[in-house]
Amino acid sequence: MPLVVRNTPRTDLAVVDGLAHAGVATVHEAQGRTGLLRCDIRPIFRPARVAGNALTCEVAPGDNWSIHVAVEQAQPGDLLVVTPTSPCDDGYVGDLLAGSLLAHGVRGLVIDAGVRDVATMTEMGFPVWSKTISAKGTVKETPGNVQTPIVCGGGYVRPGDVIVADDDGVVVVRREEAATVLKAAQDREANEASKRTRLNRGELGLDIYKMRERLAERGLKYV
Amino acid sequence: MPLVVRNTPRTDLAVVDGLAHAGVATVHEAQGRTGLLRCDIRPIFRPARVAGNALTCEVAPGDNWSIHVAVEQAQPGDLLVVTPTSPCDDGYVGDLLAGSLLAHGVRGLVIDAGVRDVATMTEMGFPVWSKTISAKGTVKETPGNVQTPIVCGGGYVRPGDVIVADDDGVVVVRREEAATVLKAAQDREANEASKRTRLNRGELGLDIYKMRERLAERGLKYV
Amino acid sequence: MPLVVRNTPRTDLAVVDGLAHAGVATVHEAQGRTGLLRCDIRPIFRPARVAGNALTCEVAPGDNWSIHVAVEQAQPGDLLVVTPTSPCDDGYVGDLLAGSLLAHGVRGLVIDAGVRDVATMTEMGFPVWSKTISAKGTVKETPGNVQTPIVCGGGYVRPGDVIVADDDGVVVVRREEAATVLKAAQDREANEASKRTRLNRGELGLDIYKMRERLAERGLKYV
Amino acid sequence: MPLVVRNTPRTDLAVVDGLAHAGVATVHEAQGRTGLLRCDIRPIFRPARVAGNALTCEVAPGDNWSIHVAVEQAQPGDLLVVTPTSPCDDGYVGDLLAGSLLAHGVRGLVIDAGVRDVATMTEMGFPVWSKTISAKGTVKETPGNVQTPIVCGGGYVRPGDVIVADDDGVVVVRREEAATVLKAAQDREANEASKRTRLNRGELGLDIYKMRERLAERGLKYV
Amino acid sequence: MPLVVRNTPRTDLAVVDGLAHAGVATVHEAQGRTGLLRCDIRPIFRPARVAGNALTCEVAPGDNWSIHVAVEQAQPGDLLVVTPTSPCDDGYVGDLLAGSLLAHGVRGLVIDAGVRDVATMTEMGFPVWSKTISAKGTVKETPGNVQTPIVCGGGYVRPGDVIVADDDGVVVVRREEAATVLKAAQDREANEASKRTRLNRGELGLDIYKMRERLAERGLKYV
Amino acid sequence: MPLVVRNTPRTDLAVVDGLAHAGVATVHEAQGRTGLLRCDIRPIFRPARVAGNALTCEVAPGDNWSIHVAVEQAQPGDLLVVTPTSPCDDGYVGDLLAGSLLAHGVRGLVIDAGVRDVATMTEMGFPVWSKTISAKGTVKETPGNVQTPIVCGGGYVRPGDVIVADDDGVVVVRREEAATVLKAAQDREANEASKRTRLNRGELGLDIYKMRERLAERGLKYV
Repeated sequence: MPLVVRNTPRTDLAVVDGLAHAGVATVHEAQGRTGLLRCDIRPIFRPARVAGNALTCEVAPGDNWSIHVAVEQAQPGDLLVVTPTSPCDDGYVGDLLAGSLLAHGVRGLVIDAGVRDVATMTEMGFPVWSKTISAKGTVKETPGNVQTPIVCGGGYVRPGDVIVADDDGVVVVRREEAATVLKAAQDREANEASKRTRLNRGELGLDIYKMRERLAERGLKYV
Repeated sequence: MPLVVRNTPRTDLAVVDGLAHAGVATVHEAQGRTGLLRCDIRPIFRPARVAGNALTCEVAPGDNWSIHVAVEQAQPGDLLVVTPTSPCDDGYVGDLLAGSLLAHGVRGLVIDAGVRDVATMTEMGFPVWSKTISAKGTVKETPGNVQTPIVCGGGYVRPGDVIVADDDGVVVVRREEAATVLKAAQDREANEASKRTRLNRGELGLDIYKMRERLAERGLKYV
Repeated sequence: MPLVVRNTPRTDLAVVDGLAHAGVATVHEAQGRTGLLRCDIRPIFRPARVAGNALTCEVAPGDNWSIHVAVEQAQPGDLLVVTPTSPCDDGYVGDLLAGSLLAHGVRGLVIDAGVRDVATMTEMGFPVWSKTISAKGTVKETPGNVQTPIVCGGGYVRPGDVIVADDDGVVVVRREEAATVLKAAQDREANEASKRTRLNRGELGLDIYKMRERLAERGLKYV
Repeated sequence: MPLVVRNTPRTDLAVVDGLAHAGVATVHEAQGRTGLLRCDIRPIFRPARVAGNALTCEVAPGDNWSIHVAVEQAQPGDLLVVTPTSPCDDGYVGDLLAGSLLAHGVRGLVIDAGVRDVATMTEMGFPVWSKTISAKGTVKETPGNVQTPIVCGGGYVRPGDVIVADDDGVVVVRREEAATVLKAAQDREANEASKRTRLNRGELGLDIYKMRERLAERGLKYV
Repeated sequence: MPLVVRNTPRTDLAVVDGLAHAGVATVHEAQGRTGLLRCDIRPIFRPARVAGNALTCEVAPGDNWSIHVAVEQAQPGDLLVVTPTSPCDDGYVGDLLAGSLLAHGVRGLVIDAGVRDVATMTEMGFPVWSKTISAKGTVKETPGNVQTPIVCGGGYVRPGDVIVADDDGVVVVRREEAATVLKAAQDREANEASKRTRLNRGELGLDIYKMRERLAERGLKYV
Repeated sequence: MPLVVRNTPRTDLAVVDGLAHAGVATVHEAQGRTGLLRCDIRPIFRPARVAGNALTCEVAPGDNWSIHVAVEQAQPGDLLVVTPTSPCDDGYVGDLLAGSLLAHGVRGLVIDAGVRDVATMTEMGFPVWSKTISAKGTVKETPGNVQTPIVCGGGYVRPGDVIVADDDGVVVVRREEAATVLKAAQDREANEASKRTRLNRGELGLDIYKMRERLAERGLKYV
């Protein structure tokens, strides 16, 4: 039986926005190199960077009915995460649904399937990360779950987990860990800034990271 | 024996241009959700939108000889559709052939294989939808059929069928049905315009499309 | 035992730059249609065109340690070529390493794996050809060979071979043959220029290349 | 509107059986190297070899309703050919449907999607060529066309065309050409038999096919 | 920090064995068409059918260290489920580890990566479902989590969930629902038995499932 | 210009046969985890195990002419290694060529493309490792190089290098290193035998390989 779970918790948007600023690669490192979705989930336009509270939605193959159900559950700051119950390339979301999502404060879409009307969604500035682009629309025969935990792009996503997405891909941050991860990401950024300066002026990573001795231990030989 | 069929019928260019205006997703819906090519046939630059009469061409793997034969059969408003007789990623068409095609009024290219010189073809504004991009050129040893029905990108294409291509992909419209499909596409566009306005101002699809009762029948439960 | 080979020979940069100017498709034809890497090695931004002396580097799956080792071996005009010892999509290079590579005169990167920080590398104008884009960073546990011959993208690459890369893909030119290939590429370009003019004004390839008789011999029939 | 076309023509089963005997590779050559389906359509068990009259069926993604409709149209000697209207890996056919198809004289199944219960269908000896194997069953919400021309596995198939399938793949023979192709295939087999004997005792193809002179013309050099 | 969780709950082996008997396709239907892994996770030999309590294990790319850690946590009736933290094709498990797993009562292996020594594991009758087969062994540098929830093959798996695997693929059953699902699966099998008999003697699904009226409502037309 | 290099060196068949006995996984480890071909090069039947001296052959896409040229260069104990100059799935080798190869002492075939007549080649016991199976035959228009170094399946292969192939895949051993690698492989086998016994009777790898301390250093925690 398809289910809609109402009043699921969200992550504080200040934390969400901080994670967006840090970006996917940094957040991924900061939370112990976990949470990344499959790298074939790609943005339809670049550059793009956004974070939001996961608004989760399961769809039947070739059927986008539950996305309409999901819109009603949206809150400003959400990011829609859609996964089909079996692999499907159809274009589940187009410019009409994108307009509806924007009107409800949804910041973007991550979908392990296809989308269409990408020229219009690009003009609208509605950011989408999808497995493919397909003009194939969908039917409305089989509703699926809304706001239940799902697997999307090989990652486990619960409603209100933070989704961070940019040109490098998409990462999920557990709601309970979001503030801690943000702190770690900010520390990491600060640390990288000084490294960047040194590397850009030609210092070697071998020296900055003191790698030479450990490399010798691993048997690295110069000839 | 390779064959060139001359004087095949075309679709009226006013209809062709109307279908280009409607776009791939709308045309696909308007003709009963049929005729779409595989979604891995992608444009080499975006945005791009074009429609034309299919000028069909079969090629041997790694051999573009019959494309030269096809150019002579071109008429203004045609769109070249090329399929290899077995899967091949080679770059069958580059800037020289693109210039030749443009000189004969050909509006673009759909090919279930690769193309090359994509930087130059982008500058020329010659729109191409291909399976891949490859610098690998081709030989001229084995001619294939020109202007016979072919399967390209999983779609059946006859000479003079209408090919509509944009950022969402490529769709084929049967010549005999082109005028009817255009009418249906225009009706659909008009219908969508009012929906778009309502969705953009926050009305729910659930209400606009009166989905609530039918969803309840399908067992959708809110918790 | 991992090895770093020092003082490998390079190709004269005048030849390298000439090959960049000719471009991948022309160079590939000019050297007898050989040397092309797999066509799924794609640029992270377009347009891009560069050539350089191959600075080769093997990496373990999910481990970019030897890239740090490679930076020390770099000379101005080099182009880093990285291949994992088994297939891996991780993001081996990001903006920090790109900055370090640029500081050492490295012109770009070809990698049969993933990269990250593509938004920043695009802003920096650091050209990269990669199999994928992934935010997944790498560890530093297992060093690999630097400046030994490798297979990357299905092509055999030795240190100091010339790598030419543009929007069409990547081609390798043997160091010993680079000057000869440059000459052949320039001849080819000159020859193509006149063909281009004739094709652009509507002359048929069938006539320019005198194909009609040979096509008839192959049995081509017009109906 | 979904359509069922009744009383479509079939090919004479004597011809069909002759083509099965010749096998896919020979039939493909005998009809001018055309008609092969994509090579990712593979048998679920080997060895397997069968031919039949195409009983065509279109299905919605994740929906096998029209296969039930197709069974009623079956005649002994048919081979069911199923294609989804957009790519889908679901398991459309299992042992129940296989039993039903066998009861109606259907000789096997070619499907550009998935099947399930492959252990049982293997025991039953019901031959299937499919794109994948998936335990995912299907719904019954959207009927599709039965006995209309379709594209399956990249090949164009009309009801009553002959489908020949074996361990090498699947080939389609036009109904009108089936007798001619059978004759050509039988000639080819006879011709190959003597070649086989000579090759098996060590004669070189270079001599049997008199290739040496033509190879020299193409510039082949021995060093 | 890598973690090993000890003393995780298991599902009663009587239930586990009942689910094995029902098979993947039936179990998948019985639990509402959920829980299936990606269909590219395939058995290394056929026929094979097994069920067990999930013993979960995360591995770094190219590194099987934590599998050795997992063996110590094994209990009779377990089935090892392994997922890499980023996609990897390497052969993580060979005959030595298979022997060790068998010695500890582990019934089989599901892995979203590669395995090796498949000839020997086939002789041993150790059933494996993997994404690929690769002779590439792995290092022991980076341990991962053991007995924590993971995503494997696109499915969410917790320690002690039931894994059912056969020739059709792999399905996960939540520990809490295992007894209920088993009951539903057995009901389904009983129901299918009578259908099978009727279909095998030629009755049509159209009649058994009373589909004709509903098909007419959907507009199905016979011509 | 296509080239045939005659009288290339071979590896002593006693060494070749020893490597076959060790098998691919062991040989790969024994030579420092190098030389493996891509894991999508798979045997057409299992079990299969063979080793031979590489007889190398380049082919144009869809063209097997140079394989006929290669047969003449064969010596007993050779194993034919074929690579297309651009990716191609066609069936380059069938039962006729297999018979010819066998007659000249060739032990098997590794090909980064397709083969056909796999049922017959299975009956003949002619072992083949290929990227795909396809009934699509090839033409004879463009000869390629024979007995020159090639890249096949992502591996660099020179004439007379040893190719070892079994159910796990294919590995290349440099001719100069073959005897050393054989010795290392035999040592490895002896070493593994005692490990196997201990693992099979339930000793833990953690203890046999003394991993506990190093795991603790890496931070592994039990909870």
